[in-house]
Amino acid sequence: MSSSSQRLSVNNLKDLFDSVEAFLFDCDGVIWKGDQLIDGASQTLHMLRSKGKKLVFVTNNSWKSRSQFAEKFKSLGISVSPDEIFSSSFAAAMYLKLNNFPTQKKVYVIGGDGILDELQLAGFTAFGGPGDADKTIDWKQSGIFEHDKSVGAVVVGIDPKINYYKLQYGTLCIRENPGCLFIATNRDAVGHMTPSQEWPGAGCMVAAVCGSTQKEPVVVGKPSTFMMDFLLEKT
Amino acid sequence: MSSSSQRLSVNNLKDLFDSVEAFLFDCDGVIWKGDQLIDGASQTLHMLRSKGKKLVFVTNNSWKSRSQFAEKFKSLGISVSPDEIFSSSFAAAMYLKLNNFPTQKKVYVIGGDGILDELQLAGFTAFGGPGDADKTIDWKQSGIFEHDKSVGAVVVGIDPKINYYKLQYGTLCIRENPGCLFIATNRDAVGHMTPSQEWPGAGCMVAAVCGSTQKEPVVVGKPSTFMMDFLLEKT
Repeated sequence: MSSSSQRLSVNNLKDLFDSVEAFLFDCDGVIWKGDQLIDGASQTLHMLRSKGKKLVFVTNNSWKSRSQFAEKFKSLGISVSPDEIFSSSFAAAMYLKLNNFPTQKKVYVIGGDGILDELQLAGFTAFGGPGDADKTIDWKQSGIFEHDKSVGAVVVGIDPKINYYKLQYGTLCIRENPGCLFIATNRDAVGHMTPSQEWPGAGCMVAAVCGSTQKEPVVVGKPSTFMMDFLLEKT
Repeated sequence: MSSSSQRLSVNNLKDLFDSVEAFLFDCDGVIWKGDQLIDGASQTLHMLRSKGKKLVFVTNNSWKSRSQFAEKFKSLGISVSPDEIFSSSFAAAMYLKLNNFPTQKKVYVIGGDGILDELQLAGFTAFGGPGDADKTIDWKQSGIFEHDKSVGAVVVGIDPKINYYKLQYGTLCIRENPGCLFIATNRDAVGHMTPSQEWPGAGCMVAAVCGSTQKEPVVVGKPSTFMMDFLLEKT
């Protein structure tokens, strides 16, 4: 505890509450667990809105776009605008934007639709992801595995449709395209594909690409401070 | 160069050659490249055999068993016995044997037939590998993803049929089965699936499992000294 911080007590609670403009929430395990709303979440958010507080929902989950997360909130009976959501899929797009990634270059995605959507919304040309889910390699026919030399960034997030085609594609871009960026939405070991069990998270796919490229990614999700720095800048 | 070593010269070459009993060869890039024999390899091996030298072929490639490698030698016109081959698939089986891995426990494999064959030859019950190549997860139907609690080791090698099912299976065994071993045949970043290009190697799949389990494997292939120590012990 720093010297300027103080313990929360009945005496200072109201002052603290009044002095805070915005509340940041994680989503998985805070607002919901899988497709179940967590007890009290809805009432708390309602109370904060009624007091005029700004709400921001921050999630490392890169599977969905902000719009898709807003749909999820809606399905759980909570009204949230996509602008109030800050997902690692959006963070990846914002990282490229802030770093002036040239729009004539392309982005290859190992991950879900959410990343593709956010990249496209930010004005970038992205491919891969679900579009490469069923691609296989015919070793008998295989000459040279070709990849697009205009790919300037590879974004990797959780991908339950991970396959060798995607791993080779991303690896070749990172290793062979000069200056190609390698961006991880996050490196969480586990993901929450179903509420009752943990599944390999983005950290699994990111590590696979580290293993084949022997390069380390820029991480835009937590625990990197990129999302928080961006939010502080924006608010 | 240590004080006891000496530069090779025309004067000491014959003495050195005569003093050496066994010659160890790597395979990829030494004997063959893809399916092409390397110039002079056949003649060199023939000459060494004619001088009564013992030959050992050491390969980090875990895709094949020793018998499968012997077949490959044969297809290239070289006669080699499986006993003269030391592959990382075999090394994984020998590691378990030397560590008295209980035969009533099972081994889950992320990798090729070569690993399964060597484990079975060594008396172990192994599954996974190519048998799980086409397995998918039905998220709609999915309750709990079940895994075999009697799995006591997960062996990971190069696997061009890597998928989320295998990653979840191996991860659950390592994380949830008490004392479950995590063995990597090797961590080579690249593999040689086709002669004209590099592909993600075992290091890619091994890293993926490290990423989801947050554990580090025992590596039996090079640059670990397990294979060399075993060979020195055996010869």
